[in-house]
Formats: sequence, structure tokens, C-alpha cells
Amino acid sequence: MAELLRNRRWTLKRRPNGIPVPDDFELVHDTIDPDALPPGHVLVRNMVTLCAPDQRNWMNEKVNFHPPMALGDTVSSPNVSRIVASTHPDYTPGMVSFTMGGWCDYALLDVAKLYVPLVPYPEGTDPIKAIGVLGMNQLAAYFGMVKVGEPKPGDLLVVSGAAGSTGSAAAQIGKIKGCTVVGIAGGAEKCAWLREECGLDDVIDYKAEDVAAVLAERYHNRIDIYFDNVGMPLLQAAFDNMAPNGRIALCGMLANYPGYGDMPGPSNFMRIVHGAIKMQGFIAVRWRDEIPAALAEIKGWIDAGLFKHREDVRDGLENLPAIFPELFTGGNRGTLLVRLADS
Amino acid sequence: MAELLRNRRWTLKRRPNGIPVPDDFELVHDTIDPDALPPGHVLVRNMVTLCAPDQRNWMNEKVNFHPPMALGDTVSSPNVSRIVASTHPDYTPGMVSFTMGGWCDYALLDVAKLYVPLVPYPEGTDPIKAIGVLGMNQLAAYFGMVKVGEPKPGDLLVVSGAAGSTGSAAAQIGKIKGCTVVGIAGGAEKCAWLREECGLDDVIDYKAEDVAAVLAERYHNRIDIYFDNVGMPLLQAAFDNMAPNGRIALCGMLANYPGYGDMPGPSNFMRIVHGAIKMQGFIAVRWRDEIPAALAEIKGWIDAGLFKHREDVRDGLENLPAIFPELFTGGNRGTLLVRLADS
Repeated sequence: MAELLRNRRWTLKRRPNGIPVPDDFELVHDTIDPDALPPGHVLVRNMVTLCAPDQRNWMNEKVNFHPPMALGDTVSSPNVSRIVASTHPDYTPGMVSFTMGGWCDYALLDVAKLYVPLVPYPEGTDPIKAIGVLGMNQLAAYFGMVKVGEPKPGDLLVVSGAAGSTGSAAAQIGKIKGCTVVGIAGGAEKCAWLREECGLDDVIDYKAEDVAAVLAERYHNRIDIYFDNVGMPLLQAAFDNMAPNGRIALCGMLANYPGYGDMPGPSNFMRIVHGAIKMQGFIAVRWRDEIPAALAEIKGWIDAGLFKHREDVRDGLENLPAIFPELFTGGNRGTLLVRLADS
Repeated sequence: MAELLRNRRWTLKRRPNGIPVPDDFELVHDTIDPDALPPGHVLVRNMVTLCAPDQRNWMNEKVNFHPPMALGDTVSSPNVSRIVASTHPDYTPGMVSFTMGGWCDYALLDVAKLYVPLVPYPEGTDPIKAIGVLGMNQLAAYFGMVKVGEPKPGDLLVVSGAAGSTGSAAAQIGKIKGCTVVGIAGGAEKCAWLREECGLDDVIDYKAEDVAAVLAERYHNRIDIYFDNVGMPLLQAAFDNMAPNGRIALCGMLANYPGYGDMPGPSNFMRIVHGAIKMQGFIAVRWRDEIPAALAEIKGWIDAGLFKHREDVRDGLENLPAIFPELFTGGNRGTLLVRLADS
């Protein structure tokens, strides 16, 4: 009979008002008996968690299409986890899997009730790579570009949040597909990285320039694809400069999450009719069957040096409430990961 | 040598403030010499004009993507016209063609400079049918449904402006494609026509019911396709109840044209990401090559009794400024046409 496992988990103490602060969360200590799993469950040890902007939305009282986190719940998050015990026939101890395991050392998951299923990785997978450069953000960029953006050589692509985890992937996929690519990012360091390392054709620093004015001056009615990670007001600036038959791939609205309830769409909306413009939201799991092929293609680009990526890896479950808000203040450099356990 | 032709034309005297009023237009009398056409021109006799809501937008100081009507210009409109003289090799007198001939008896058109090209009809075409039941509104409905709405049997389709020229076509195409169809229209007569003649499954009378409340109660998160002719606030009501992977076909924003500059989009815009929703504007000319096949298919539906249509045919160029505003007050019953000359 195994020992009880000591577990720590961060719970949602109160709903954040704007950008989350550490006091919105509470650390709870408890224990789990690995020998007393109910049927159909897996017990996982979380190894790495991805800080994803959408987690902020899940903390609101109302969330589109699925139930919100309840106060007192463990904070929900995408993780790479190792299965340590299982009463479900499909999963065995030692497997490493994608899970929505949350901000905790250990998570007990009822397989039949998971909103997002377990996705086991091949043996020998590097957990950081699996949720970093080959993770859900890169898949979002891939499907958003390929399925929604429909890039053609010579198209003008504008990407907001371009130095971020998803944005930098979208921008580089645009380059690979033959687009002229304009990135919008905050600060000289990020802009230089996009221009010099990622090979973007133009970069606009939203902290130093008036993005709407720059787009209107350089690209009026010429944007074929806008890959949006931030929402308003940049969405309006791009919308007002879309080319006829343009495509707007809506991946996220980072700038609007703290004020969730009021998240506005663009105005002058008749432009979407006159310009025959498409705006489409998407989530990568819609193309679940195509994920292995997408990952293989991304791997090929990485090997060929066409796809730069930055992981910003931090350490320690205990630091999560202080690290997560950096997504909203621009503190991270690339995909923001927190190691929860040694591999 | 032929006589000079006496011509009457309605010009834009001032830009309308809200719904147009007759004093926004001025009737100008002049003459045209049919023997003195510059090279590459056609002179047409306008036979029927279609009152289309988008004409209201063209009267604004700013229009998306193309130049606005100038003050003093003949009001632009889609017409069926007969060619009476031509110095262009492709067009000969006697031909009947679609033109953007405007609110006038005769129009002199420089073929190379047309924003919308001439589209000659086969000999013997009935001008009322050509711009009515087989006209641009029906093509918009066809392509909006087929290319943007992507209807599948069992889908729930909601159509606003459902008793209108385009809306009634979109709703019935939905029925033909196997959808469950809900129409939104104003007044008992229109609602009864949709239910009893067009066979819609449910009809909401926006003059008598709270559409947002009805949609939320009956169809929450269940609308697979919303075919929009009116814009806000109905667009918001539908948006808030779209199903995951839903499609919004944006055909027009009738309710918003009078206040053009402020035409808003929906809020709670993150729903488009979480629901992987598509919103797409469109104009039928994008699928120009497929228009003959589309018209043939619509004709087949009419012959099979699957496609009801109402034309509201008025008479007289002189009455246009009084007739046109009915589009915005709901006065017309079906496609609003004005006969400008006897066939």
C-alpha cells in the first residue's frame, strides 16, 4: 500500500477584477490516496503548465459555451502530466499526456467527464517541447492561418501580439506561405526579434507608434489576412484597412480579457459586407484528426530553421499567481511555461 | 438624324439624414443626342429599377471601397435597360441588359469605366422577372446561403428581414437544403405569409415580440446559421445564441443604414473565438462564373413550387423619391421594383 500523496493546489478564491493579482488565489494543501481511485479515473503528476490568456476568461462568472470555474475550484490549466495511477483501461502509469490538469501537484481526473480529453504523447517526449514549440498555441497558429487565413503567396498578413507564443508562430507560417508579413508587438526588444530573427517584413511597436495611423498610411485597404490575438482597439485598426475578400482569423482578445463583459466588436461593420470580409474564430481541436500532420509539418519547419520560437520557462507551482499575470502586462518573452516537477 | 431624347433624372441634392426624404433629391431635365455618342459608350433606356437598401449607403459622404455619389450626380441604381445606341463593339441596339443605369429615363454609359459591368440577358427576357425573382437579391440569398451559410440537413437557420426580397429567398433555400428555418419579420401579414406560404418552421414578429428573449428561450446556443439582412440590434440577439461552429452570413444591415457612420458590430465578441463562429460578408459578383448555374437552380425551384416570391411593382420615375424610403419603413411587400418604361 502506497503512501498518501501530499498535494498542493491553487484554488480560485475570488473572481479577478481586471488583471489577476496573487490574492485572487489560495493555496490549499490536501492528500490523495493513489490506491483508492474510483473506477474510470487517472491520477496524474503535473510536470509543466502552460500559461494561456484564455484561462483568464475561465475565471469569470460567465463563460461562453462551458461552465465557469467555481470559487474554490482548482485553477484550470493546460498541462503536460505523467500518469501515476489509473483505473481506466486506456491509460497506464508512466504514460505522459496532455491534460487540463490545473494548478496543482497531482490531479485526479474522471476520464468520462473531461471537457478536454487526455492526449497521450509518444514515449520519450520532452514535456517542455510538447507544450511549448509543439503545443496548443502553435497548433492554433497553424490552423488559424491555414484554415481561416487561407494564405496565398503575395498576400499581406498583419499579426497582432506578434512576439507572443501564438503570434510569432502565425507570422512565421505566413512567411513560409509566401506572404508579406507585418507584426504588431510592444517594445523595441520584441520588435527587433521579430524583424531580425523571424524575418518579418515590417514591425509596428504599439507602445511607441499609433498603430491605426500606421496601418492607414502604409496598408489602407490592403490587408488580406489579419491574425488577431488581442482584440480591440487593434482589431478596429486592422478591420478598417482590410482588403476586399480579406480574412480575419480571431484567435484571442488578450487586451480585452480583464474587462470581459464588455468585450466589443469592431464598428463600421458594414465594411464586412461591402468588402466581402470573413471574420472567423477557431479552436484547434476542431481539426483534431489533422493535428499529427500539423505537428509533423511544424517540426519540419523547425528543423529547416524556418520557425523560431522562444520559451520562457519558470519554476515552481508556488509562483504561479505571480507569473500568470505577466501575460497581460507583456512581461514574458515567448511561450510562458512553469515547471511543476522534474521530468 | 434622330431627334434629341428628352431625359429626366433624379439627382442627389443633399445627403440624407437618416431615412431619405423626397427633398433629398432633385429632378433634372436635359437632352441626349443618340447620334453623338463618344467612342466606347452605350446609351440605354431604363425599363425597371430595383430599390435596394444598399443604395442608401452610396448616398453617404464616405462609402467603403468605392467612391460615394457626388452631390448633383444621378442616383445610382440597379436597372434592367434596353440599349438604344452603342459605339461599343460588344453591345448593339435592342439588347436588354442589367446596368447600374440610375434613376433616369436614359443613361449614357462609358463601358470601360463601369464599376459594375453590363450583363446582357437572353432574348425574350421578362425585365420584371430578370431583376425580381431572378435578380441580384435572389443571387445574394443563394450565394450567401450556399457559400457562407453552408447549410446541412437539420441545421437551425435564422433569417432576419425574412419577408423581404433577399430574406424570403434565403429562408426558402434553407428549407430546400433541409434546415429548420426561423424567420424574423415585422407584422402579422408578413409573418403569416412566411409561415403559410413559404413553409417556415417558426416566425418571430419583431414588432410584437422581444426577439432577443425569444431566441434565448427557444434557441440558446443552437443557431447554426444566421442570415442577416438588418444588422444591430438583431445581429446581437442572434450572435448571443449561435451554436459552436455557427456561420453568420452578413448580407446587409438595413436597420443601421440611416445612422451609417456609427454602424456597430456585436459585443461579447470573444464568443466568436470560443464558439469557433464564422461571420462573413459577401457580394454575389464574387461568384460571377457560377451565376448562370445559380439562376438555373432557382428557376427549377420556382417551377417545382418550392420558392415563393412577391414582387411589389410600382410605376413611374417621378415617384422614386417617395417609393424608395419604404424599404426602411417596411412598406413594401417583397422585391420593390419601379417600372420606368413599357417593355
